[in-house]
Amino acid sequence: MRTITHTVRVEFGDCDPAGIVWFPNFFRWIDAASRHFFAECGVPRWEETAKTMGVIGTPLVDTHTKFLKTASYGDVLHIRTQITEWRDKSFVQTYRIVRARPDGEEDVILECEEVRIFASKREDGKNGIRAVPVPADIRALVEG
Amino acid sequence: MRTITHTVRVEFGDCDPAGIVWFPNFFRWIDAASRHFFAECGVPRWEETAKTMGVIGTPLVDTHTKFLKTASYGDVLHIRTQITEWRDKSFVQTYRIVRARPDGEEDVILECEEVRIFASKREDGKNGIRAVPVPADIRALVEG
Amino acid sequence: MRTITHTVRVEFGDCDPAGIVWFPNFFRWIDAASRHFFAECGVPRWEETAKTMGVIGTPLVDTHTKFLKTASYGDVLHIRTQITEWRDKSFVQTYRIVRARPDGEEDVILECEEVRIFASKREDGKNGIRAVPVPADIRALVEG
Amino acid sequence: MRTITHTVRVEFGDCDPAGIVWFPNFFRWIDAASRHFFAECGVPRWEETAKTMGVIGTPLVDTHTKFLKTASYGDVLHIRTQITEWRDKSFVQTYRIVRARPDGEEDVILECEEVRIFASKREDGKNGIRAVPVPADIRALVEG
Repeated sequence: MRTITHTVRVEFGDCDPAGIVWFPNFFRWIDAASRHFFAECGVPRWEETAKTMGVIGTPLVDTHTKFLKTASYGDVLHIRTQITEWRDKSFVQTYRIVRARPDGEEDVILECEEVRIFASKREDGKNGIRAVPVPADIRALVEG
Repeated sequence: MRTITHTVRVEFGDCDPAGIVWFPNFFRWIDAASRHFFAECGVPRWEETAKTMGVIGTPLVDTHTKFLKTASYGDVLHIRTQITEWRDKSFVQTYRIVRARPDGEEDVILECEEVRIFASKREDGKNGIRAVPVPADIRALVEG
Repeated sequence: MRTITHTVRVEFGDCDPAGIVWFPNFFRWIDAASRHFFAECGVPRWEETAKTMGVIGTPLVDTHTKFLKTASYGDVLHIRTQITEWRDKSFVQTYRIVRARPDGEEDVILECEEVRIFASKREDGKNGIRAVPVPADIRALVEG
Repeated sequence: MRTITHTVRVEFGDCDPAGIVWFPNFFRWIDAASRHFFAECGVPRWEETAKTMGVIGTPLVDTHTKFLKTASYGDVLHIRTQITEWRDKSFVQTYRIVRARPDGEEDVILECEEVRIFASKREDGKNGIRAVPVPADIRALVEG
């Protein structure tokens, strides 16, 4: 199973008055890791897939996330991303965020399991989105 | 069980290139709703509780969140917050985000169940936090 | 000259490890105040104006901002917005952010003067935007 | 004069419904570049300088920023940072954000000139900060 690592550096402004990462920022990095996973597999920008297969992105429908250790500015975090399950109109994407320790081991900061869909614009012209079947071309790029 | 409602307005900048709320912003609003819940119950600012009971905040340790409908800018969202369970060193806080419909009903946008702790600064002087027993005074204010 | 006030509440997560508002959040609120100004004048959503007059929004081209006092969570801030000058393809929008004091006076937190344009999508199909002349209909709504 | 470059990658979630970077995110990157400048010069974390010289950070008091070209997700931006002037209790920090072009030239995306102060906690125990004289040790590290 393909694992792709996305690395981020925690900044001063990512931290709250307690001096630790304010948790919505972890979801910012997870969303970037999700997109990077597809980009690394060769999936084009969503503007492109919107034209070629009607897919405008992979919005989140469910997340289950455990926050195991805190992080603070200056920390370098590695986000390891996989797709662990394909369903008809959705898929499971998982993330493990780790930080290197001086002794060569790693601290696990966060574990996240998401369900995402491939989305198209609604066909009735209204604002909003709808789920479409997992595009075979995208799945092939990921599994390739 | 006490329910406290926090209302937010979705702004243009809260939305992504697909025109819908970028999901980390929901967690921004949920975190605000969590703090407002305590503020409405009469719990002072965390700087105050840091001095009086050693509590610097209520960091998140687990979230399970379902995204049921999309939202976009101009939407007014109501976040209904409860504490549904008290444990020794943690508590369960739940959120239901709804949007009024023209017909008088409500669309449910998101449901979230969190585990949070009451945190103190670490005693060894290092950066970071540790969980402390649920302060009886805070629980009394919430249940009052 | 029309002044429209937009009110925001500072949240815990808007503050940095120094316990004060992290400054990019002021620009988040200013951008919301800019859009609210037009909304209050009766200008429809940008998806609508995109169809009727080719305008997708009012991106910023220049900001000059003075930060006069700090703010922290729990503060209620009032943002007073005006359009102080119309140019051919741009306009000047100004903001004054104040906080009520217990003695009935106000503290000025921030003063900001911006130049914004009315933008259309590029005509060559590439990603990006271009400035268009100030739409007479929008100016009439604001000056009405 | 020392120039330090900080590089960021624009993410999907950094962009607004017009598909371009939502401008408050530029200030997020500028603030990170400001801190990186000091870190690269050898200035320790603000918790350290708080203990050794009473300095908790370098809050912004004035910014003048020109937005010259738009950017979108996938773009890699280089932020070139300098300190161009030292005053008694403040300093001028400037930023130039560029993007490499396929022809080997660079597009200038943004130019920013800031005034920042070195801040201490207020001495009267109230929330808030005050400006202190530029610490000679920090200036020496930057000019070294």
